[in-house]
Amino acid sequence: MTSYHMTPDEFRAAGHELVEWVARYMETVDGMPILPDTRPGEIIASLPNKAPEDAEPFAAIVADLDAIVMKGVTHWQSPGWFAYFPANTSGPAILGDLVSSGLGQQGMLWATSPATTELEMVVVDWLVDLMGLPQEWKTSGPGGGVIQMSASDATHVALVAARHRLENRAEIGDMVAYTSAQAHSSIEKGANIAGYGHVRLVDVDDLFAMELAALEAAIAADRAAGLTPAFVGSAVGTTGTTAVDPVSEIGEIARREGMWHHVDAAYAGTAMICEEFRHYQDGLELVDSYTFNPHKWMFTNFDCNVFYVADREPLIDAMSIMPPYLRNRASDSGDVIDYRDWHVPLGRRFRALKLWFVLRSYGANGIRHHVREHVRLAHWLEAQIEADGRLELVAPTPFALVSFRHRSGNEATNALAAAINASGHSYITASQIGDVSFIRVSVGQTATDERHVERLWGLIDKKA
Amino acid sequence: MTSYHMTPDEFRAAGHELVEWVARYMETVDGMPILPDTRPGEIIASLPNKAPEDAEPFAAIVADLDAIVMKGVTHWQSPGWFAYFPANTSGPAILGDLVSSGLGQQGMLWATSPATTELEMVVVDWLVDLMGLPQEWKTSGPGGGVIQMSASDATHVALVAARHRLENRAEIGDMVAYTSAQAHSSIEKGANIAGYGHVRLVDVDDLFAMELAALEAAIAADRAAGLTPAFVGSAVGTTGTTAVDPVSEIGEIARREGMWHHVDAAYAGTAMICEEFRHYQDGLELVDSYTFNPHKWMFTNFDCNVFYVADREPLIDAMSIMPPYLRNRASDSGDVIDYRDWHVPLGRRFRALKLWFVLRSYGANGIRHHVREHVRLAHWLEAQIEADGRLELVAPTPFALVSFRHRSGNEATNALAAAINASGHSYITASQIGDVSFIRVSVGQTATDERHVERLWGLIDKKA
Repeated sequence: MTSYHMTPDEFRAAGHELVEWVARYMETVDGMPILPDTRPGEIIASLPNKAPEDAEPFAAIVADLDAIVMKGVTHWQSPGWFAYFPANTSGPAILGDLVSSGLGQQGMLWATSPATTELEMVVVDWLVDLMGLPQEWKTSGPGGGVIQMSASDATHVALVAARHRLENRAEIGDMVAYTSAQAHSSIEKGANIAGYGHVRLVDVDDLFAMELAALEAAIAADRAAGLTPAFVGSAVGTTGTTAVDPVSEIGEIARREGMWHHVDAAYAGTAMICEEFRHYQDGLELVDSYTFNPHKWMFTNFDCNVFYVADREPLIDAMSIMPPYLRNRASDSGDVIDYRDWHVPLGRRFRALKLWFVLRSYGANGIRHHVREHVRLAHWLEAQIEADGRLELVAPTPFALVSFRHRSGNEATNALAAAINASGHSYITASQIGDVSFIRVSVGQTATDERHVERLWGLIDKKA
Repeated sequence: MTSYHMTPDEFRAAGHELVEWVARYMETVDGMPILPDTRPGEIIASLPNKAPEDAEPFAAIVADLDAIVMKGVTHWQSPGWFAYFPANTSGPAILGDLVSSGLGQQGMLWATSPATTELEMVVVDWLVDLMGLPQEWKTSGPGGGVIQMSASDATHVALVAARHRLENRAEIGDMVAYTSAQAHSSIEKGANIAGYGHVRLVDVDDLFAMELAALEAAIAADRAAGLTPAFVGSAVGTTGTTAVDPVSEIGEIARREGMWHHVDAAYAGTAMICEEFRHYQDGLELVDSYTFNPHKWMFTNFDCNVFYVADREPLIDAMSIMPPYLRNRASDSGDVIDYRDWHVPLGRRFRALKLWFVLRSYGANGIRHHVREHVRLAHWLEAQIEADGRLELVAPTPFALVSFRHRSGNEATNALAAAINASGHSYITASQIGDVSFIRVSVGQTATDERHVERLWGLIDKKA
């Protein structure tokens, strides 16, 4: 019988070639201009507008990968990447993902891949201890953790569970979600998608943390208007400036008001593997859900989000449906976790493998080392900026994000940002809060070390 | 400086080893018992309950992968896999995913990875032509396609867009979603998550397709009760028996009633690459959204769902939020697609690479060949069952799923199912509709050929 499948031996040959290709990319990415020089539509115009009718040799695909696709790649894996937050990959993560692709597991139920479910339970439980999270969040307790695709997905699911819990008592259109004006856009987006009638972006203080009085006033006004406060999101490390909301106090308000309290530690959660940062998340005993992204700063390639709930009941209650073709003895027994009831998708890739590879290959101490080194380098950069009369900091640096601006104003700040990004070797984010433009330098790419931060500072010093 | 990172050369060594590991898995999976012999908790008990403090050698991780993780793997990639629908991987898909992991792109915006966005536009446009979809669904038209994680995600997003379009005119709690009683559970789950007050599972006819009269009666009753019909989902290939709903007529009803019409072709969409199946989806000109899973039958490993909309406006309107740290010239210009506005998550992996690798490596003719071969083998099996006095078919086989039962009743059917699955080499799904138990044989795993279907039939013949 004719077969168009790649044989195992053809896979071997192409696979070895691409392992070399990825290794060479790791070795050479630092020399590549981070931003591609491509105009909208250029990649599309370089490719045929019809799929090939006949099979093409693998070499032709790799040739186009090099000649066309690579022209449009933004080098998130460059050690000069200081933009947004990192989306780190690493050798062990890539290899864990390779095994996941090869095994082709679909772990929607425990029964459809016990290993996918149980290795996931193991790694999310490991992280409870590594990050100093409440023991009740282990899968052996009333709560538990699950791997989701992104923090946006996790936050959306938290919003749905919060809404579901109150659906017998209020109209969805009357429910209100609160978060700070500096919170990530995924909370507002998730609340809109979940159907909340109202989202309040609560005022922040001088350090960009949520103002408790403003939160309480907003809740009181909404109650007076007959609305139902349902959800409050605290940030441990906002996207704008890594500000930290008063988690403990927000938790008390949430408990008193019967609201769901969700903590978004998408970026900063990784830092909690070092004890000295954990005071920033004091108050987790009054939290209903918590999310962070190993695919940001924990060297585990996208996508890998971890989401915890203190009590899994309302989550599963909001998400579970059991059709006959999915019924099985293990699920009926209640002895197993069926993770499909913990999120929107039914199908599940074996994502725990890459996180397990990373945690074992680095060891907790390895991750701690690199996190502390990134924070140390961020503080070094912060000190240079503080000592420089032309520049000023716009926010503290609790983790490894330095937020600063040119004292001459927005125009000079934006010009400096443009000059840094034009260098090719270093890339930052130009942002703004209100009318104030500033520059975000996020130190945390897997391979970033002091040479790269010094190179960036040299550039800032020259261009300011 | 101490570093715990795997070096490029260490990555080379481990990567070559794991390419061999995956190739050996491809070569040997047919001999492995498909279902793992593991009890709930066994994998967990075999692993330490704390993460290692110190880095471990890569060889130790691979050793535990073999000794512990593999004990809990269900072999979805066995050619004897006839359960559920396939979740196929293939050499080119694994390799495209390897490059994706290595490049570590995060394509939330065009500007954060032009290649991720534009290659995705290219492959979803290719599929419009390959599958005979309306030209308006190309990204150059008013609609467009996007890669999502799963059909559940795509369906949920369709439900949200449908709801959003009507939010000014009706309460969410008064909105109604309709689909057949044989539709996939993701529609009911998605509607619950999106906050719909009501889901109607409409009666089906003798072939398990939605009854139009029942749909119209349900809509009329809901209108009379003051509710707002908002969404109707048609299936092209239900999960139970691959039944096909009357897409064209449902489209006319949806248009008349101002409802969103979504088509779930999660499994059967792949077959549309062969012209002879396209009559099953006649009526796509009256469809608002459509989804199918290359990660089922198109040899592209999980996760890879494709979702099309006829008009992208209501989708983006429901999903878009633009905070300052994501603003950029390309997005402001309106010249580019920012795919983060097409789904719940913000971050995006470079998933188009694996689909591009597959489409080029197989060519359209290669995929057609294997789809037709799977359908031919399913029809061969259907003929054996039809000719056998002990067995009876319970549904037609429009694609490659054979649904049958033992004429002696549910007990004999369930015993036969258990005997097949106890063989180790072949694995099917025992399902039921109403009180009737039946056996689903889904022919479609990447490597399944006539030897495997003949082996399965030999087993059925012996055990019936």
